[in-house]
Amino acid sequence: MTGRNSRDQALRERAHRVIPGGMYGHMSTARLPAEYLQFFSAAHGSRIWDADGHEYIDYMCAFGPNLLGYRDAGVDAAARSQMSRGDTMNGPAPLMVDLAERLVGMVDHAEWAMFCKNGTDATAMAMATARSHRRRRKILVAEGAYHGVAQWCVLRGDGVLPEDKAHVLTYRYNDIDSLAAAARAADNDLAGIFATPYRHDTFRDQEPVLPEFAAAARRICDEHDALLILDEVRTGFRLARGGSWESLGIAPDLSCWGKVIANGHPISALLGSDTARDAVTRIFVTGSFWFSAVPMAAALATLDVIEASDYLERIEERGHQLRDGLRQQARHHGFALRQTGPVQMPQMLFEDDPDLVLGHAWTGEALARGVYLHPYHNMFLCAALTEQDVRTTLERTDDAFRALRRRSGDTRAGKQQHANRGLGYDEEQVDHAT
Amino acid sequence: MTGRNSRDQALRERAHRVIPGGMYGHMSTARLPAEYLQFFSAAHGSRIWDADGHEYIDYMCAFGPNLLGYRDAGVDAAARSQMSRGDTMNGPAPLMVDLAERLVGMVDHAEWAMFCKNGTDATAMAMATARSHRRRRKILVAEGAYHGVAQWCVLRGDGVLPEDKAHVLTYRYNDIDSLAAAARAADNDLAGIFATPYRHDTFRDQEPVLPEFAAAARRICDEHDALLILDEVRTGFRLARGGSWESLGIAPDLSCWGKVIANGHPISALLGSDTARDAVTRIFVTGSFWFSAVPMAAALATLDVIEASDYLERIEERGHQLRDGLRQQARHHGFALRQTGPVQMPQMLFEDDPDLVLGHAWTGEALARGVYLHPYHNMFLCAALTEQDVRTTLERTDDAFRALRRRSGDTRAGKQQHANRGLGYDEEQVDHAT
Repeated sequence: MTGRNSRDQALRERAHRVIPGGMYGHMSTARLPAEYLQFFSAAHGSRIWDADGHEYIDYMCAFGPNLLGYRDAGVDAAARSQMSRGDTMNGPAPLMVDLAERLVGMVDHAEWAMFCKNGTDATAMAMATARSHRRRRKILVAEGAYHGVAQWCVLRGDGVLPEDKAHVLTYRYNDIDSLAAAARAADNDLAGIFATPYRHDTFRDQEPVLPEFAAAARRICDEHDALLILDEVRTGFRLARGGSWESLGIAPDLSCWGKVIANGHPISALLGSDTARDAVTRIFVTGSFWFSAVPMAAALATLDVIEASDYLERIEERGHQLRDGLRQQARHHGFALRQTGPVQMPQMLFEDDPDLVLGHAWTGEALARGVYLHPYHNMFLCAALTEQDVRTTLERTDDAFRALRRRSGDTRAGKQQHANRGLGYDEEQVDHAT
Repeated sequence: MTGRNSRDQALRERAHRVIPGGMYGHMSTARLPAEYLQFFSAAHGSRIWDADGHEYIDYMCAFGPNLLGYRDAGVDAAARSQMSRGDTMNGPAPLMVDLAERLVGMVDHAEWAMFCKNGTDATAMAMATARSHRRRRKILVAEGAYHGVAQWCVLRGDGVLPEDKAHVLTYRYNDIDSLAAAARAADNDLAGIFATPYRHDTFRDQEPVLPEFAAAARRICDEHDALLILDEVRTGFRLARGGSWESLGIAPDLSCWGKVIANGHPISALLGSDTARDAVTRIFVTGSFWFSAVPMAAALATLDVIEASDYLERIEERGHQLRDGLRQQARHHGFALRQTGPVQMPQMLFEDDPDLVLGHAWTGEALARGVYLHPYHNMFLCAALTEQDVRTTLERTDDAFRALRRRSGDTRAGKQQHANRGLGYDEEQVDHAT
C-alpha cells in the first residue's frame, strides 16, 4: 500500500503535524478502512483521482455536492464569468434576487429565500426562526438525525453543555406516537419540528418516510402553531426537482438546503413560507461570504440544468442499474447485502456484520479496483455517471465479491446466505420508493 | 435618486418579495442612509460599481475580505487553475497541507490549523475547544464585542435563549479589574477568554489594546489553565503579517481567522498552539465546503503576497494619507471628525452626533461623489488603493464637507468646532498606533 499510495502517505504524515488528528469532520478517514485515501488531486464528471494519480469511478460525490458531474462545464463557465466581474463585494450582485426568485419558483412551499454557506447555517437559522415565531423554546428532532454541528444539534464530541440542548426533545423517526408524545411534552412551548425527508442516519439502513408520519408532523405543527422544518441539506434536488415531500402533499414552513445547489460551489439556503417571514426577520444572522456572487452564478446555472434536463431520471436509471447488478452479484457470491434508501442515495450494509468487517473488506477491494464506495455512509450518484460507468463498476464489484469470498472463505459466504434466508430478508423490500 | 439608482430600486422591490426584509445581516442597508446602494454589479482593484453602473473608490473592502484589491490577478489565477482540476471532492487536495504549514509558519503561536467557511465557524470551534480543554464551562467575552452569530455570542435578535449564554460572562475591554472580576466569578470553571486584537465595536470609537490588558488576559488564562482566544477575523493580516499581538509579545492559545485569508474567496481558519491540540480533536465540527480546494489555492496565493510584498506598508501609507487629509479638511470646514483605530481600518464619527445626522449626511455626500465610506462601521483599506486614489478621494470629501456645511448651516459647523475645542478633543490622540 505504501508504494501504491506513497504520496497520500507522505501527505498524511505532514498533515498529522499541522492539522489536529491529521484531518477532521466528515473528511477524516479515521473510521474508514486503512486503504482509503485522504487526499484527492482532481475530479471530473463521474471520476476522481487520488494524490497518487489513481482514478476512481466515484459514488460519494464529495458527500453530496456533486450532482451534475464534477467540474460541470456550464456551471463552472457561469462561475468563471461572474468571477471576472465580482464575487465578494460591499453588497450582493443583482443575481441574488434572480436566485431567490428561481428557488421560490421551484420549491412549492417557498415564498422567500436566504443564502448562507454551510448546511449548519441553514439549520441553525431554521431553529432560531422557529423559536422566534411564537417566542417558544422546544425543538423536536429525530433520535440520531444529523442536522449539523451547531451546539444545539451536534451528535457527538466535546464542548457541548447540557444547556445547549436543554430545550431540544427527541422522537423516533416514522413513529407517530413518539412524535406526539414529544409534542405533548413540549406542550405550549413547542417552537418547531425538524425532520429529514427520509431517514438517512450513518451506520444503519435507510428508511423511507411513512406518508402518515409526514402528515402527522404537519398536523401537530398546525395544532401547536409551530413550524415544520424539512432538512433537505442531504437530499435536495436528488429526490425531486422541488421539495422532497411535495409528492406526499406535505408542505413544510421552512426547508434547509445545501450541498448540491451550486454543484459543489459553496452555498446553502433557507427557504420559507410567509408564515415564517416575520420570525426570520427578527433573528440576526450573517457571514462574510454569504452574499458572494460567484456561487450564486454557479447555483443559477445548476438550477437551469435541474429545471430543463432529464438529470434526475438519468441518475435514477443508473441507480437502478447499480442496485440490480449488485443484488444479483451478492446473491451469486452468497452475500446478504442490504441496499437501502433511494437508488440515487444508496446505503450498502452486509447482514450480520456489526463491526463492518465484510463492509470494509468489500469496499476496500472495490477501491483497489477503481470504484469509490463508502462502507457505512449513504452514497450519492451524479448525472455524469454513464451506463458504461455502471457496467464497469459492476465488473469491478463482481471481482471484489470474488476476492471477498476468497478472504472470508466459503463458510462466511454461506453463513451470509443463510442469514439472508433465515431472516426472510429481501433487500427489495427496503428499497426506497420515493 | 430614483432616476440615478433606478436599477437598484427595482432590484430592492423584487428582493422585498423573495428575501425577508429585503436583505439581511451585514449586507442589509436598513440602518444606512437612504442613498446607500443595495446591489453591486462589479468590483476591481480599489473600485466597485453599483447595479446602475456608478463607480466608487471603495473603503469597505466587502467588510474586510478584499485585502489586495478586488479580483487580484494572481489570486484569481490560482483559483481558476485549481478550478480546472477540482474543488469540492471526497477529500481535500494536497494543498490543504501546504496551507496549514504556511499559516503555522506565519503566525507565531500557531502549531496547527483547521479550515472552515465563516468567521463564526472559527469562533464557535474556539469556544467548544476551550470548553473541551479542561471540561469547563465559563467563557469570557468583552461587552459589545462581535464574535459572530452562533447562539452563544450573537449580540442581538430573536431566537436566543438564556441557556445559550448561561456560561458566557462579560468584561469591559481594556479594563483589567473587570476582566479579573469575571475570571474570579468563573473561578474553577473558567474555560477561556475571548478578545479582539483591539476594540472595534460598531457605532463607537475604536480603541487600541492596552499592552498591560493583553498581558493580564494571558496571565489570567495561565493561572486558570484556561485558553486565550484572539479573534482576528476582522483584523487578520491588516495589522501585521502574523498575529496582531505578536508585537506585544502576547501569544494566544487559539486564534480565529477569516475574511482576508483568500482575498475574498470563502475560507476561514482556526489556528492553535499544541496546548489546545488534544481539546480540539475531541470536538466534532465539519462543513460541506470546508475542504474545498479552490479557496485554499486562492489562500496560498494571497499569503504569497502577504509574505513577499510591501502590501502592508502601502496600505498604512494610504491610511495615513487619508487620515491626515480628512483631519485638515474637517478642521478647515469646522467639523469635529473623530478618526479612530488603525489607519488601515478607520472608524469615522462626528463629535456631538448621537443620531449620526452629520455622519449620514457627510458619507451620503461622499457616496454621491463616488467615494464609498461607512457612517458607523469601521472601514477597511486595500493594497490596490493608490496615492492618486486617495488624492481623488480627498477632493471629493472636501466637496462633501462643503456640501455638509451648506446643508447644516454655518451654525452647526461652528458648534462642531466649539465642541471640538470645548472638550479639548484632539483626534490625533485617539489614532491607533498598532
